[in-house]
Amino acid sequence: MTSTTRLPSQSADFPAWYGEVVRQAGLAESSAVRGAMVIKPYGYAIWEAIQRELDARIKATGHENFYFPLFVPASVLSREGRLIEGFAPEVAVVTEAGGKTLSEPLVVRPTSEALIWSTYARWIQSYRDLPLLYNQWGNAVRWEMRPRILLRTSEFLWQEGHTAHATREDAAAYARQIHFDVYLAFLRDVLGLHVFVGAKTAMERFAGAINTMTCEAMMRDGKALQMATSHELGQNFARAFDIEYTDAEGERQLCWTTSWGSSTRMVGGLIMAHGDDAGLRVPPAIAPIQTVVVAVKDDDETLAAVERAEGALRDAGVRVRVDRDASTGLGRRLTEWDLKGVPVRVEIGPRDLKEGVVTVVRRDSGEKAAVPVDGVAAAVAEALEAAQRGLAEESRARTEAHTRDVATVEEAIEVAADGFARLPWSACGPDGERRLNEHAVSIRCLQTADGGVPGDPEAGDLVAIAGRAY
Amino acid sequence: MTSTTRLPSQSADFPAWYGEVVRQAGLAESSAVRGAMVIKPYGYAIWEAIQRELDARIKATGHENFYFPLFVPASVLSREGRLIEGFAPEVAVVTEAGGKTLSEPLVVRPTSEALIWSTYARWIQSYRDLPLLYNQWGNAVRWEMRPRILLRTSEFLWQEGHTAHATREDAAAYARQIHFDVYLAFLRDVLGLHVFVGAKTAMERFAGAINTMTCEAMMRDGKALQMATSHELGQNFARAFDIEYTDAEGERQLCWTTSWGSSTRMVGGLIMAHGDDAGLRVPPAIAPIQTVVVAVKDDDETLAAVERAEGALRDAGVRVRVDRDASTGLGRRLTEWDLKGVPVRVEIGPRDLKEGVVTVVRRDSGEKAAVPVDGVAAAVAEALEAAQRGLAEESRARTEAHTRDVATVEEAIEVAADGFARLPWSACGPDGERRLNEHAVSIRCLQTADGGVPGDPEAGDLVAIAGRAY
Repeated sequence: MTSTTRLPSQSADFPAWYGEVVRQAGLAESSAVRGAMVIKPYGYAIWEAIQRELDARIKATGHENFYFPLFVPASVLSREGRLIEGFAPEVAVVTEAGGKTLSEPLVVRPTSEALIWSTYARWIQSYRDLPLLYNQWGNAVRWEMRPRILLRTSEFLWQEGHTAHATREDAAAYARQIHFDVYLAFLRDVLGLHVFVGAKTAMERFAGAINTMTCEAMMRDGKALQMATSHELGQNFARAFDIEYTDAEGERQLCWTTSWGSSTRMVGGLIMAHGDDAGLRVPPAIAPIQTVVVAVKDDDETLAAVERAEGALRDAGVRVRVDRDASTGLGRRLTEWDLKGVPVRVEIGPRDLKEGVVTVVRRDSGEKAAVPVDGVAAAVAEALEAAQRGLAEESRARTEAHTRDVATVEEAIEVAADGFARLPWSACGPDGERRLNEHAVSIRCLQTADGGVPGDPEAGDLVAIAGRAY
Repeated sequence: MTSTTRLPSQSADFPAWYGEVVRQAGLAESSAVRGAMVIKPYGYAIWEAIQRELDARIKATGHENFYFPLFVPASVLSREGRLIEGFAPEVAVVTEAGGKTLSEPLVVRPTSEALIWSTYARWIQSYRDLPLLYNQWGNAVRWEMRPRILLRTSEFLWQEGHTAHATREDAAAYARQIHFDVYLAFLRDVLGLHVFVGAKTAMERFAGAINTMTCEAMMRDGKALQMATSHELGQNFARAFDIEYTDAEGERQLCWTTSWGSSTRMVGGLIMAHGDDAGLRVPPAIAPIQTVVVAVKDDDETLAAVERAEGALRDAGVRVRVDRDASTGLGRRLTEWDLKGVPVRVEIGPRDLKEGVVTVVRRDSGEKAAVPVDGVAAAVAEALEAAQRGLAEESRARTEAHTRDVATVEEAIEVAADGFARLPWSACGPDGERRLNEHAVSIRCLQTADGGVPGDPEAGDLVAIAGRAY
């Protein structure tokens, strides 16, 4: 279905490398609609694994899922001024339906905020209804000026969580729980990414938020990708949508709300943060195929050994695929599995079998080991664990190596050419931020001195992480 | 969040009963957009369970999932004349995006057929690429004239499968495999529904199909609901979208395609087929809450026993919820759990505990049993199995009792007042079908004499199943 050619190297042309990996590994492709993509089976299987892992973590915090309509009446969307201002240039609008012109245009949701808050106003009566903890998986549409496959697409798939609370403290604590226990833990433990957590500056904050927390990862070209954000919305949306509750004393109070989201752009981040010149490197925890067993030849003895290995791996709970296609040259087949980033490969051939061994190869490090035929399941389990750790460690080391402390905005611009700059916020400020922006550098987040998320994003002595970004 | 009042009885006013169950059990509600619904957490949890079970069965037939864009250019949709004719009156159209009027309007997918087939034309080159077996989970929009919550909504969630094959035989065999091994098995074994499988008449067939197979279930008011359909599309779409392959002899051939779908309307079917005057009855296989443990009083001994029971059930893999809220009257709490259709209830109170027992109650039959405190997990497992069987058996018995053999169209119209009529197709034909339609009765499917799906829907000696339908 796709023709495999040699990939461009990352150092020669990173965007070309990205485009070719997405195409050749069968992750996604452009569609007949500008900026909208087809997520192909292999790419979608990665997304399904991401969903499964994230959904379990979200539910573990006490959430349930629900589903709100795709269309938002224009009048509902415009009830929060900042929200409509932020999204107006990006929306797609339905003006005709059922063969008639609609009396009120319907906006295809750029986010479900407006519809959800206007409904929460009805659902919430008393403090006993709080907190309200709901999440939604679905699609959203934002008409992108410069679409880029999987990273910035006119339509994307995502989850958006929306919670309502009785107090600011409860809302803040909850946003942090989601940000750390769900997003950060998922990105670190499942995707194997080293990320910076911090608060967005006032300029980069979500429309209507009083605090936006972000997880920023470094891609292998040194640029940043925002992987997930969590917003404390204060009482802004509650005020706009009349979300009130009656407290224990019978007084009417405005709610405090949060929202938080992550999307299919995480698949793009995974490619660019872990991929190398040979293609993808998928972390075992979400790999649709964790191990491929390759028959080097197709003699009976080899095929029988391949089948036994497959059975042993399947019994051990490994997501395994078999490649028996000896009509295609071995080199070409291995190139293909490398391209798809399958974490561990087991090669079985007559020469090894004579010695009673098979070869186990890690995609992340290229490490090879001859292991006894009967020990294949144990060896693969160990290799998968090592590969998961290896990718995470590589992400950390590379990110740290490309993150430098600087003292001025000018130095930050220089350093951002191939990495992140760590700059005292007091040496930058909103004026410095504008100067950075003029050089296509942005402040990815503000951190406390020890790398934490500031409780107050307006506090002094914060550190700004600056970089170019997707 | 919702106020519980007494439900109307099914026999007095079935539509009112349905609306109140949907509202009071917290399944779904209408939204600010005409005909589009909010699927509330409890309703969505049922849909998630349906998805999980169906998805596993679909994948077991060799499928992978993918995702196609929400928007379909009007020119692509109109490439198959029958398709656009069938859907034109129902589509919603995006005419503005990104602040500009679009040069070509974008249709919000009523189905992804057109976009998918136009892409398959590119993906398929050789017979080696076949069969192509892909499925998609997503939303779709059809502007309904008479929307009805969960049954016929402007937007719905569904899965749509689309396969391409080298031969008619392969396509036909595959459509049957999906229809029997996935849909029929799921509806019977998971949803506990007795269904009629058969072929649609030419009049009821999907636009562009040469054969549409259906699963039709009887609701408790005797009306039919189409639960899932599988279409053999012949070469119609392949011809319209140029889906060709090169066969082993190097000749270009048109593909044979199938498609098949099922949607959130299954949740509506579940409610109307199993629900009773007290509310929902959810089959244990997909119940978000399989068992609720109710503390009759809130003394220490009772609460400790409740906790032990919860632990034992959780350890046994039961999806369990605890109700300790002794501040609300017991009767009201039990009414609430009945309304939500939780399959098994465990009541624990001081009086029973003195005897060393707890009470296990089945929602489907109302059967109560006193079981030893230590035997609660085993008793609940048995009750859940019995409830699953019980609902299925009741569905079968009720459907059979309300399905009568008749000889004429006139008799069929009469019988369809509260059930299905089984009528020789030779005594009906397209003329009879039109007469049925004039009385709001339709032919739900054509079957072979032994209740099977006809290989040829135009064959003689078929039996028509006629009924009123949602």
